[in-house]
Amino acid sequence: MEGIVTEELKVVGKSVPRIDALEKVTGKAKYGVDVELPRMLYAKVLRSKYAHARILSIDTSEAERLPGVKAVITGKDMPKDISIEIRYSKLNLPPPYSMAVEKVRYMGEEVAAVAAEDELTAEEALGLIKVEYEELPAVCDPEQAMKPGAPKIHDVEGNIMYEAKTEFGDIAAGFGEADYIFEDRFATDLVHPCPLEPTVCITSFDSSGRLTFYENSINPFMRGKLLPSILGIAPSKIRIVQKFVGGNFGSTQGCLTPYVICALLAKKAGRPVKLVYSREEEFLNSGPRNITVSYLKTGVKKDGTITARDIKVIINGGAYLYLGPKIIMSGFTPCAGLYRCPNVKFEAKCVYTNTAIIAPYRSFGVVQTTFGMESMMDIIAGKLGMDPIEFRLKNATRTGDVTVVGQKISSCGLAECMEKTRDYIDWEKKRAAKQPNRGIGMACGMFDSEIRNAPFAGSVAYVRVLADGRVRVDSGEYEWGQGSHTVLSQIAAEELSVPLESVEFAELDTEALPFSLGPYGGGPVTLRGGNAVRLAAVDAREQLQAIAAEMLSVRPQELEMKDQKIMVKGDPGKALSLAEVASYAKYEIATEIIGRGHFEPDTVIRDYKTFYGNYSSGYTFVAQIGEVEVDPETGKVKVINFASGIDLGKAINPMAAEGQSEGGLAQEIGPALMEYIIYDEQGRVLNPNLTDYRLPTALDVPPIKTFLIESNEPNGPYGAKACGQLGNIPTSAAIANAIYNAVGVRIKELPITPDKILKALEEKKKGR
Amino acid sequence: MEGIVTEELKVVGKSVPRIDALEKVTGKAKYGVDVELPRMLYAKVLRSKYAHARILSIDTSEAERLPGVKAVITGKDMPKDISIEIRYSKLNLPPPYSMAVEKVRYMGEEVAAVAAEDELTAEEALGLIKVEYEELPAVCDPEQAMKPGAPKIHDVEGNIMYEAKTEFGDIAAGFGEADYIFEDRFATDLVHPCPLEPTVCITSFDSSGRLTFYENSINPFMRGKLLPSILGIAPSKIRIVQKFVGGNFGSTQGCLTPYVICALLAKKAGRPVKLVYSREEEFLNSGPRNITVSYLKTGVKKDGTITARDIKVIINGGAYLYLGPKIIMSGFTPCAGLYRCPNVKFEAKCVYTNTAIIAPYRSFGVVQTTFGMESMMDIIAGKLGMDPIEFRLKNATRTGDVTVVGQKISSCGLAECMEKTRDYIDWEKKRAAKQPNRGIGMACGMFDSEIRNAPFAGSVAYVRVLADGRVRVDSGEYEWGQGSHTVLSQIAAEELSVPLESVEFAELDTEALPFSLGPYGGGPVTLRGGNAVRLAAVDAREQLQAIAAEMLSVRPQELEMKDQKIMVKGDPGKALSLAEVASYAKYEIATEIIGRGHFEPDTVIRDYKTFYGNYSSGYTFVAQIGEVEVDPETGKVKVINFASGIDLGKAINPMAAEGQSEGGLAQEIGPALMEYIIYDEQGRVLNPNLTDYRLPTALDVPPIKTFLIESNEPNGPYGAKACGQLGNIPTSAAIANAIYNAVGVRIKELPITPDKILKALEEKKKGR
Repeated sequence: MEGIVTEELKVVGKSVPRIDALEKVTGKAKYGVDVELPRMLYAKVLRSKYAHARILSIDTSEAERLPGVKAVITGKDMPKDISIEIRYSKLNLPPPYSMAVEKVRYMGEEVAAVAAEDELTAEEALGLIKVEYEELPAVCDPEQAMKPGAPKIHDVEGNIMYEAKTEFGDIAAGFGEADYIFEDRFATDLVHPCPLEPTVCITSFDSSGRLTFYENSINPFMRGKLLPSILGIAPSKIRIVQKFVGGNFGSTQGCLTPYVICALLAKKAGRPVKLVYSREEEFLNSGPRNITVSYLKTGVKKDGTITARDIKVIINGGAYLYLGPKIIMSGFTPCAGLYRCPNVKFEAKCVYTNTAIIAPYRSFGVVQTTFGMESMMDIIAGKLGMDPIEFRLKNATRTGDVTVVGQKISSCGLAECMEKTRDYIDWEKKRAAKQPNRGIGMACGMFDSEIRNAPFAGSVAYVRVLADGRVRVDSGEYEWGQGSHTVLSQIAAEELSVPLESVEFAELDTEALPFSLGPYGGGPVTLRGGNAVRLAAVDAREQLQAIAAEMLSVRPQELEMKDQKIMVKGDPGKALSLAEVASYAKYEIATEIIGRGHFEPDTVIRDYKTFYGNYSSGYTFVAQIGEVEVDPETGKVKVINFASGIDLGKAINPMAAEGQSEGGLAQEIGPALMEYIIYDEQGRVLNPNLTDYRLPTALDVPPIKTFLIESNEPNGPYGAKACGQLGNIPTSAAIANAIYNAVGVRIKELPITPDKILKALEEKKKGR
Repeated sequence: MEGIVTEELKVVGKSVPRIDALEKVTGKAKYGVDVELPRMLYAKVLRSKYAHARILSIDTSEAERLPGVKAVITGKDMPKDISIEIRYSKLNLPPPYSMAVEKVRYMGEEVAAVAAEDELTAEEALGLIKVEYEELPAVCDPEQAMKPGAPKIHDVEGNIMYEAKTEFGDIAAGFGEADYIFEDRFATDLVHPCPLEPTVCITSFDSSGRLTFYENSINPFMRGKLLPSILGIAPSKIRIVQKFVGGNFGSTQGCLTPYVICALLAKKAGRPVKLVYSREEEFLNSGPRNITVSYLKTGVKKDGTITARDIKVIINGGAYLYLGPKIIMSGFTPCAGLYRCPNVKFEAKCVYTNTAIIAPYRSFGVVQTTFGMESMMDIIAGKLGMDPIEFRLKNATRTGDVTVVGQKISSCGLAECMEKTRDYIDWEKKRAAKQPNRGIGMACGMFDSEIRNAPFAGSVAYVRVLADGRVRVDSGEYEWGQGSHTVLSQIAAEELSVPLESVEFAELDTEALPFSLGPYGGGPVTLRGGNAVRLAAVDAREQLQAIAAEMLSVRPQELEMKDQKIMVKGDPGKALSLAEVASYAKYEIATEIIGRGHFEPDTVIRDYKTFYGNYSSGYTFVAQIGEVEVDPETGKVKVINFASGIDLGKAINPMAAEGQSEGGLAQEIGPALMEYIIYDEQGRVLNPNLTDYRLPTALDVPPIKTFLIESNEPNGPYGAKACGQLGNIPTSAAIANAIYNAVGVRIKELPITPDKILKALEEKKKGR
């Protein structure tokens, strides 16, 4: 049965407020920190003050004797060997990290933890734990760490955590064809996403031994898969409930530490335990975006055709193997995909450093490689005497392309993104009639709509029609602020012909919902989750129809669905409300209306060595033009205007898509111009707070005009693909290009702080 | 696909400890009273001291001003009209009852309720509520209530709540055929089941307006169906979570009062509210078993053949229409079913009285009608000079019978129940060589295995195989102490070839589990729930097989299931554990192993007027022989021995079945010999406490020998039907018959207290 086809979209494609908006703005939404359980204890963690040191001894006896202290744990309480074994496990599994054993390898690393009747007692107990360290020399810069004689962080030559090397086409021939070859070095710095809400976790064992986590992190299903072996608890006895998430942006993606600590404390104390990070802990232990040093080499013909690219990337992986390799692989996405290029070489190294374990802050490594690539595009255009947009358009990837690394570009609005923003910003006029110290610059970007990282890379959803005709979506795809629950609810509402208000979303509970990968290395909720929800809603609709047909003594094909009713075509008097059908189903024949949607994209896992393969069922594109004003006296950059064209396939909720785009752009102004975590020579973090670590404020954010480019992705629901990661990808490069246009200096290391500009202006003046 | 057939039962039919035993005996099990929510308030209820009075005014202003009081409600806060409207709604819906409006009609009726920061403040606030009453004359006895001039409780002639009249066969011809006609009156009194745990309810609204109830009652799904219209909340916004239940026996079946009060207080206060009944409230407001007065007339031939029965029953329904009509209908079960009789007439009246609203304490009315019928059987046998067992065996219903009211007896072990207990007790020898003041008596009983009370009368279950190979049963059939979760788990374990320890049961949550009728008017969990769980487990097994076949590259038919493994037949080396298959399903193909079982018995709803129809897919039988010693000086009866044969089809868990049988019998010694609620002339309850209301203790319970008669019910899982209601049905009658055998006096009104025996012995001495 084909189902009743809704001819005109009524809910999808309309701008609607988020379904959780009311709860959030009225303060009714329950976040992790709001969870209070009877007899709950409070946890505090003792952290290393050293970036690199041997632990000679830990004495917790005095802390244990403090009244009110119910449990103290150290690295010795970590389930035997498992943490170490998993840290070094094969690369296709992100190694969970727990507490320090024998050595600490970064400032803030967990050394001991306490659970007590209240926070002050727990804090006091930390002060009673005596730890003897032998400090070791530290190294935080990945290039320094690779040098002979550098401090050894693990027993690994040159501190190399991971290496990749791959080549497509004929790289020598490619450069041979080129009229010009450009070489340059670019670098990005360590930055932190600083979500409003810090990491929180509450753990509680029930009487049957089931361990429940209430938390605000992402990827609960993946953690639910990894935690059992670490904690020695059967998978079916671990349940994770995600409360409202106050921002995250990837900083805790998959990181297991706080959850393991909280669970072990709850087990030892025999009571529920709550752990809430301070802002300092958030800086030290919730993963930063890594440093990426890019050595780029590009060959171009006089006419602007790119013939070859050689990309060498070095990133710091932090003190433990974690997502570094995946960040490298993901960062490669635009290198061969954003612009056509038949010959591409890629080399990458992920290096152990005495810094926090890195995490994939917004766009999973792509923003870092994009900064170098898109800076270089402007350098090349300048050399060729071409307009930077013209140069980009000439090489831009188009719909139907299959890139040299196997990406099948089933939809691509990149050119339109460029054109729309160009026209809006009045590019040519502004480039021609340049005002002093003002400049505009463009940069583009590319990201995948979803990613096959595991044998299953789809999504499963159930859509229930409840006895009162309300609709509940059970999807493991999670909401961490991006508005995805609203988008998925719109899809369910559309297919079941009900208003959006009739749809509710099940709380994320790994025990109650189908397994989901979540936004793991991409922004896949709309494409994967949307397809699954759509299929589930259609299935539910067909079930309703079959029952309604029985109730009305007609054939299902004679029915149509309209305005929450199922009616006989051409005889609206013969109609049943959804509630009537669902209530009959529930109470009279005990059949629940549960539609099931199982979506699997037609993709492959990228080859582990060559990175070849079409791993995503859709690719998204973005072009941004930024306008800046540089004060040559102070070196201060003011971003005064921005236009952003994002190719999201189709906007299910235009307002939310614009919000995502604007939010990403605003957030990226920080890493572009002001944010960086300062490590001193001993590897100590000097600014783990919001006073010394400068975030952009509303005053730093310019007016932003977003163009939603609907390229109609054939693999997505209603043509939609992703959009959440696009807003920020080209922002830094666009700003750097605009600065060059404004004052003629090229800053190749982020953030572009006033001192770097002043220094460059000075050197320029000196004629270097 | 037929599934893999398990040839020999490995878990089913074995005596196993209850799956919740460990939690219960270690105190880890969480009961309703253990539920603590943040910011929770405590409720107390102001109750009428009068049995019948007009409410002239209620002044709650002073209570509202008391610091710590957060909400006060009275009958005026009941959602407009609905309570009254539903009280008088059509009979096929049990009318929910809420707070008094205008009049109070029994002592203890709810007049006002308070929610406060703590219990003492709530209690204090009750004392500040001023209620003016105008007392009215009360009537508690149903026969008195029917008389002209009796106080009118509702605006109904003769206080008649409900009447039934039906006739099968030719009643006049039946009595015409008879050689003897017996007529007599029997009566039972008001008794209370006194569960260990009193009624408890916690209500909490979440930020989306969803109302959750945590409670210990039964029938959460039925309440979930009724509460929305009363509370004006959409059905999908009401969720009921059943915690461990500390006994119930029907006393709160379907009664909505505490839940409505608790919900309205939570709504008014905007905070969670907890209500816990005191023992006195439990007596006054949690339903008692009704009074049943039976006027019986039986025609028999000289050879002992029963030719006709005329049964007139009068019961008190209490102050409000509730389950009275259903109790009458259910009480009719054995009247035409226990013994063969072609001509049966039945008349019944349910009468309003100024007593608490009645509830179906264990066996739903059948114990009351059985007392009269089975007393009369002994009277008749005595008159005919027949042995009472011989007389019963002659008329006993047998497998294959279709009774005159349409009951299809698909299995019947009644005769075997009689024979087994007779042989065990050495009946003939003891009857022949009677010791002074000692006597033995038999009585039999019948109950349905399940009942069709609604269009859907089946059960739905899901059986999940979790990623670690554990099995979870999702069934809405609830555990209220009878051991049903263990029985259903055994069935799942059997079909999936796992040990019982690998099976867990989902907590009863109306939002998470499929709709269930629960043990509504019967003991249907084993038959209905068991069939559903079995079908679900078989479905899960077939899903596992299909996936395993894919993993092993064989056809499903080539596989067999053994010891938690799925293996290629004849090649045990080629095997996968359940965990391997389920984990592959979950993580590699995102398919959850969820078997679905949907069981619908082949039955009909009894005709509303004639009571005709085969409403149950199985009927259960019981025979008991009790041995008593009567002290003629004090009138005290000591029960010294008991044998009970229960026909349960098949014992899934023999130990649990014996426990049910013994528990029921022990409990019924109370109503037989000592328990009754004492009402004075103004309708005041004089003994609402466990000092003045005498329950049997361990010293009152004799040795009990239970015979599990396995008559192999074709409609039940593995031949099983029900057993939970059998233990107590014939106990009173067996004791009464034994007393007659011991000292020659026939007591026709329960309880058989010493004063009644002494009086009868005196009258016997006087030769009356």
